Amino acid sequence: MQKKNVAVVGATGYTGMELIRVLSTHPGFEIGAVTSRSEAGKTLQELFPYMQGTKSGSIAVTFPDPELVARDCKTVFLAVPHGAAMDMAAAFLDQKARVVDLSADFRLRDAAEYSAWYGLEHSRKTWLKEAVYGLPEIYRDRIAGANLVANPGCYPSSVILALYPGLKHKIFDPEGIIADSKSGTSGAGRVAKTGTLFCEVTDSFRAYSLGSHRHTPEMEQELSLASGRDMRISFSPHLVPMNRGILSTCYVTLNSRMQTQEIRRIYRDFYQDTPWVRIMPEKVLPETRWVRGTMFCDLGFVRDQRTGRLIIVSCIDNLCRGASGQAVANANLMSGYDLDLGLDAAPLMP
Amino acid sequence: MQKKNVAVVGATGYTGMELIRVLSTHPGFEIGAVTSRSEAGKTLQELFPYMQGTKSGSIAVTFPDPELVARDCKTVFLAVPHGAAMDMAAAFLDQKARVVDLSADFRLRDAAEYSAWYGLEHSRKTWLKEAVYGLPEIYRDRIAGANLVANPGCYPSSVILALYPGLKHKIFDPEGIIADSKSGTSGAGRVAKTGTLFCEVTDSFRAYSLGSHRHTPEMEQELSLASGRDMRISFSPHLVPMNRGILSTCYVTLNSRMQTQEIRRIYRDFYQDTPWVRIMPEKVLPETRWVRGTMFCDLGFVRDQRTGRLIIVSCIDNLCRGASGQAVANANLMSGYDLDLGLDAAPLMP
Amino acid sequence: MQKKNVAVVGATGYTGMELIRVLSTHPGFEIGAVTSRSEAGKTLQELFPYMQGTKSGSIAVTFPDPELVARDCKTVFLAVPHGAAMDMAAAFLDQKARVVDLSADFRLRDAAEYSAWYGLEHSRKTWLKEAVYGLPEIYRDRIAGANLVANPGCYPSSVILALYPGLKHKIFDPEGIIADSKSGTSGAGRVAKTGTLFCEVTDSFRAYSLGSHRHTPEMEQELSLASGRDMRISFSPHLVPMNRGILSTCYVTLNSRMQTQEIRRIYRDFYQDTPWVRIMPEKVLPETRWVRGTMFCDLGFVRDQRTGRLIIVSCIDNLCRGASGQAVANANLMSGYDLDLGLDAAPLMP
Amino acid sequence: MQKKNVAVVGATGYTGMELIRVLSTHPGFEIGAVTSRSEAGKTLQELFPYMQGTKSGSIAVTFPDPELVARDCKTVFLAVPHGAAMDMAAAFLDQKARVVDLSADFRLRDAAEYSAWYGLEHSRKTWLKEAVYGLPEIYRDRIAGANLVANPGCYPSSVILALYPGLKHKIFDPEGIIADSKSGTSGAGRVAKTGTLFCEVTDSFRAYSLGSHRHTPEMEQELSLASGRDMRISFSPHLVPMNRGILSTCYVTLNSRMQTQEIRRIYRDFYQDTPWVRIMPEKVLPETRWVRGTMFCDLGFVRDQRTGRLIIVSCIDNLCRGASGQAVANANLMSGYDLDLGLDAAPLMP
Repeated sequence: MQKKNVAVVGATGYTGMELIRVLSTHPGFEIGAVTSRSEAGKTLQELFPYMQGTKSGSIAVTFPDPELVARDCKTVFLAVPHGAAMDMAAAFLDQKARVVDLSADFRLRDAAEYSAWYGLEHSRKTWLKEAVYGLPEIYRDRIAGANLVANPGCYPSSVILALYPGLKHKIFDPEGIIADSKSGTSGAGRVAKTGTLFCEVTDSFRAYSLGSHRHTPEMEQELSLASGRDMRISFSPHLVPMNRGILSTCYVTLNSRMQTQEIRRIYRDFYQDTPWVRIMPEKVLPETRWVRGTMFCDLGFVRDQRTGRLIIVSCIDNLCRGASGQAVANANLMSGYDLDLGLDAAPLMP
Repeated sequence: MQKKNVAVVGATGYTGMELIRVLSTHPGFEIGAVTSRSEAGKTLQELFPYMQGTKSGSIAVTFPDPELVARDCKTVFLAVPHGAAMDMAAAFLDQKARVVDLSADFRLRDAAEYSAWYGLEHSRKTWLKEAVYGLPEIYRDRIAGANLVANPGCYPSSVILALYPGLKHKIFDPEGIIADSKSGTSGAGRVAKTGTLFCEVTDSFRAYSLGSHRHTPEMEQELSLASGRDMRISFSPHLVPMNRGILSTCYVTLNSRMQTQEIRRIYRDFYQDTPWVRIMPEKVLPETRWVRGTMFCDLGFVRDQRTGRLIIVSCIDNLCRGASGQAVANANLMSGYDLDLGLDAAPLMP
Repeated sequence: MQKKNVAVVGATGYTGMELIRVLSTHPGFEIGAVTSRSEAGKTLQELFPYMQGTKSGSIAVTFPDPELVARDCKTVFLAVPHGAAMDMAAAFLDQKARVVDLSADFRLRDAAEYSAWYGLEHSRKTWLKEAVYGLPEIYRDRIAGANLVANPGCYPSSVILALYPGLKHKIFDPEGIIADSKSGTSGAGRVAKTGTLFCEVTDSFRAYSLGSHRHTPEMEQELSLASGRDMRISFSPHLVPMNRGILSTCYVTLNSRMQTQEIRRIYRDFYQDTPWVRIMPEKVLPETRWVRGTMFCDLGFVRDQRTGRLIIVSCIDNLCRGASGQAVANANLMSGYDLDLGLDAAPLMP
Repeated sequence: MQKKNVAVVGATGYTGMELIRVLSTHPGFEIGAVTSRSEAGKTLQELFPYMQGTKSGSIAVTFPDPELVARDCKTVFLAVPHGAAMDMAAAFLDQKARVVDLSADFRLRDAAEYSAWYGLEHSRKTWLKEAVYGLPEIYRDRIAGANLVANPGCYPSSVILALYPGLKHKIFDPEGIIADSKSGTSGAGRVAKTGTLFCEVTDSFRAYSLGSHRHTPEMEQELSLASGRDMRISFSPHLVPMNRGILSTCYVTLNSRMQTQEIRRIYRDFYQDTPWVRIMPEKVLPETRWVRGTMFCDLGFVRDQRTGRLIIVSCIDNLCRGASGQAVANANLMSGYDLDLGLDAAPLMP
C-alpha cells in the first residue's frame, strides 16, 4: 500500500500523543510532519523518550507553518486548543490540505451557539458551513467527501452513540434525558494544573461543570437531528481516577413497553455497518477497560422495571474513540481506505 | 471518663476493621471483645499487623459466643453478613446487651420487603419491630433509647441525607428521582473474588446492579417517610477505582423556581444540630477525598437552568459515615455521650 | 501471508488473555484453539465480553485435549501453572506440536534446582534437556530450531537483559549484585486472593519474598552463563499499585572507571540486532508506562560518583515482554517469521 | 489542658495541609495563625473546603508577618520552601518564638555541605549552630530544650530509623549500604507540574535523582554520627502511584552471623522509649498502608541466606511521620507534653 503523508499539528497534548501512537503502526499513513510551537527543534523521541525505537521516533518536530507542512502533507490533524484551531484550519485549507480538527471550533453549526458557549466570536464562518461532524456511524458518506471534518468531543461521542438510534426510532422520549458521564483524567488535558495533580485526583471522585459543560450543545445539536425536534439534555460530567475511558449512564423514558431484547435488535441493526459499536448481551454491562486503546463503543441496556426507565450505559476510550482514533477513522474515510484500517487492535487488558 | 466495654463481632471485613480503627482512640469506649469464627485464637495484631503498637493490638480474637461476650460488653457492634446477623443480634439482645447491627437485617420495617429483596425469611420479626433505623440526623432521640439499632447502608446514608430535607419541605417532586451513585471498592467487601482484584478494578469504571440493588428499598422506605407518600427512585450504583468514598449525583425536579441559595438555607436549618452535614457554598462541589476517614456528609447544589432540574451531589466515606463510624455515633447516643465523641477527625488529605 | 494455526492452552489468566490480545491482530498466526478446563463450552466473547467484535470472539473454548488440539495447531502456547505444564508440554510434543511454555517448568536446566525451588520432582527430564530458554536477544538461533521453548519469567526478563552484556564484557563484578525489582499487580495472577484485592493493593506499596523468590535461580543460571562463573544475586521483588510493568533497579560494582557513555555504547552494540532493547540517553531514566503493551526493554544508566556504583534501571511490560508477547516472539522465530512480526505496537500512553 | 497557640506558616502545600489536619484535633495546641502569601484574606475553609465544619475552618489566612504572628503564637511551624525558610525562621526566632522548620535549611550542620547540595549560600549560620535535628528517637532531650528544630526530611526519617541502631551497635558494615526508597507522590509537592499530573504518574513507576538526591547528605550526616565514622550511602528514590508512604529497602552487609531474631531484639531495645517504631515479627514485611496517617515507622528484617546480606524494610507515612506529624511531635517535646500527644491515631485502613 502506498502510504499517504499526514501531519500532526500540536503534538504535546494527550490527543497529539494518541495520534502519533495510532499513526505509528497505521498501514496507510506515514507521519510526514509533527509540529509544536514549544518543542520545535527536537526529534519526536527527544520529546517523548517512549517513541525511541519506533519508526516515527526520529521525525523532527517543527514549528507549525501551514504552507511548509502542506507541501508534503495533504491530510492534517489539528490537535491544538479551540480558538486557535479555526485560523489554523483555514490556513491549511487554503493550502489545499484536508483537515481533521480535533478541537471544538467546527462542531457547532450555529456560530452564535459557539460564541455563547465558548466566549469567542467565530472567525471562519464560511468554513464552518462546510465542516462535517466526524462521527462515522452517522456521517460516513459526507465525511468521505469532506475537506474539513469537525472531530467530535469525547463526551458527545459516548452520549450520541448511546442515544441516536433510540431517538431516531422514537423508542424513548426526547424530553427529560439525563447523561451522567464519568471520564478518565486524560480528558482534562496535559497542561500542568493543581487540580489534576496525581494527589488531587487519585483515591477520589468528583463532579464538575454540572449543567454547564461545553460539550452539552454539541450533544443537543446531534440528538435534535436524530429526534427531529429541538431538545435539551441534562449532562453531568465527573472525574474518575483512571487514565482513559468514559462511561455514560443515560436515563431515558420509554415510549412503550418495549423490552430490552427488542431495543438491542434495533440498535444492532442501526449499527450493522460499523465494526465498533458492540451491543452487550442481556445482563452484561460494559466497563471502560474493555475498550482501552480501541475504537469500540460498548452499549449495555437495562430496563428499570420499578420506575419504567431505560438505562443505557455507554463506554468508550476518550482518547482513541473520543478523539485521535476517531480522527484517524475520519482520515481513513477521506482517503478511501477501509474505515477500520489500522484501528482494529484488541483492548489492552488489564 | 469511665470507658464502657464494647464488642466487635466480626472483625475480618472492612467494616470490622474500621470499627476497630475508630474505637481504638475513642475516649468513651474500650474494646472488650473482638470475635471472628475464622481467626479466633490470634491476637488482633497477629491478624492485623498494622494494629501493633496500638492499645488494642494485644486483644485476643475469640469465637463469637454471645453469652460470654455479653458478660463484659453491654454494647455490641455486629459486623457479620446479613442473614447471619438476625440470629446473632437476638442472641445478644437476649443477654441484655444493646446491639448496633451493621448488616441489612433490621433496616427494612416490612419483613415481606426484606424477603423479596434478600431472598430470605426474616426469623426475628419481633425484634424487627423494635429496631430503630440508625441515621442520627433523623432518629437521634429514638436511637438514644433503642436496644437494637439497624445501622444504615452506605449508599442509603449518602442518598437519604441528600434528599430527606427537600422531600420533607416539598422543595422537589417525589416522582422521577434518580440517584446515580459511585462507590469506592471497599464497599464490595473483603472476600476474595476475581471481580474485585486490583487488576480488574484499577484504571477502569463500571456500573452494576442497575435498577436492582438491595439498598433501593431502604432508601425508598426512608424517603417515603420524608415525603409522606409511597415513592420509588431509580438507583444506579457504580464502582470507582478508589478505596473509600461514595458520591451520589441526585436528580430531582423542583416544585418551584426556588433558587439554590434558598435551598441551601433550608438544608442548613434542617441539619443545624448535626456536626457532620456540610452544605457546600455556591459553585463548590464536594469530592470524596474531602470526607476521607470522617463522618462528614458534604452536599453540593446546582440548578440546571436549561432543564429546570436540581442536582444534589452528596459525598460520604462509605466505611466511616456509611458504616462503622455511624455505628459508633449510634453507640454514642445509646450511651448518653455527645454524638461526635471520638468522631471529630479532620479528613486525611491527600 | 498464509497464517499458521496456533493454540492457547489456558485462557483464563492474565498471560492467556495477553496471548489472545497479541494473537488477535497477528498477521502470521490464527488462533485455532483456546482451551480452559473451567470455561470449556463458552465462546471466547462469552468468557471475555471485551473480545466481542474481534475476529477471535466467536472461537469456542474447549477442554485441553492435546491430541485433538494438535491436529489443527502445530504451535502451542502453554499458559497453565507450573507443575501442570510439564506433562501438558510432553503430551503436545508427543503429538509433534512445538511448544512455547510460559510456566517455569522448563526454565531451569538442573532438575535438582527445580525441585529445590519449586518443591516438585521434575517428571520430564528428557524434554528438559531439549528445552531452549526463550530470550530472543540471547538464544535467537537456538529458539528458531527448538521444539520446546521455556519462556522466561517476567522478573528474569527484566534483570537478565539489564545485566547480561555488562557481565559478558566484564564491565562489572559478578559478586554482590542486587536487583531491586518492582512489579505491577498483574504479575500476581488472576486467581482470587484477599492479598491482591483492589483495596489491599491500591494506595500502598510492599516488598515480598525477599531473598527467596522463585525467579532467583533462573536469573542466576543465565547470568552465570554470561559471566562465565557461578554467581549469586540478591533479588528483591516489590508490589506496585499498577496493572503492568516491571522496573528493576540493579546495583553493580564497576571493574574500572568506565563512563556511562562507553557502557551505553557496549550495550547498544550488544543489542544491535533486536528491535526492542532501548538504551536511554544520558539523564533519561525509563518509566514503566513507556513500555506499556509492548516488547520494549528500556535501560537507563547512572554512575553514582560518590560510591562508585553503577545503577542500571530496566523497564519492561511484565505481561507482554515478560510473558505473552515474548512467547509470540519465540513462536515467530520458530515459524521463520521476522522476530517482531505483530509485535511492533507503540506504547499506550497514558 | 490549657492549649498553646501555634502558627502554621505556609498553608498551601501538602505539609501545611497535614499540619492543619494533625493540629485540628490536637488537645494541647490551638491553631492561632495560618499564613500564606498567595491565599491571605481567605478563611481556611474557603481555601480548603474540606475544613468546613472543623473548629479551624473559620480561621483567617494572613500574610506571613513574623512580628504580628509571634505576638500570639510562640511556637511556629514553617512549611515554606528551603531557601525562604532560613530568613523566615530567623525573623521568628528574633521575636522569641520557637521554630520547627520543615524545610531543609537547618538540617545540615555544615553550611558548605548545604551550599554544595542546595546551590545556595546559608544566610543564618549562627542559628544553624543552634538547630537541633528533630528526630525524636535520637535527639529527644535536645529537642525539648531547643529554640529551633530542623525537622527531618521524609526519606531520611525512613532510612535513618532503619539503620541507626544497627550502625550504633556495629551489627553491619557502614560501607556499601544501599537505600532503595519508594515514595508516594505527595512527596513531590503540590506545585502544578506536568510530571506529577495524574496521567503521568498513575499506572506507572519510575526512578529519579539516582545518586544525586538532596536528602543524601542528611542521611549520611546522621548515619556517620551513629557509626562513628564518615560514611557514604547509595540512595535511590522512586515514585509510586500512591498518595502517601515511603518504603525503603535497605541493603547492608552483616558483621557477623547474627540472626534476625537477635537483631530484632537489639532494635526493640533501642526503640523501647518510642511509641512509634514497630519491629515486625519474623516473616512479616511492612506495607505503607499500615502506617497511613500515623507516626509509625515499621521495620521488617530479612537475612538473605544465599548472599549473606541483611535487608531492612522501613515504612513511614511521608507526610505525617516524614514531615508534619513529626513536627508536631517535636513541638510536643518543646512544650513539655507527652511525645505522642494528639499523635496516637490508628492507621486508616484501607
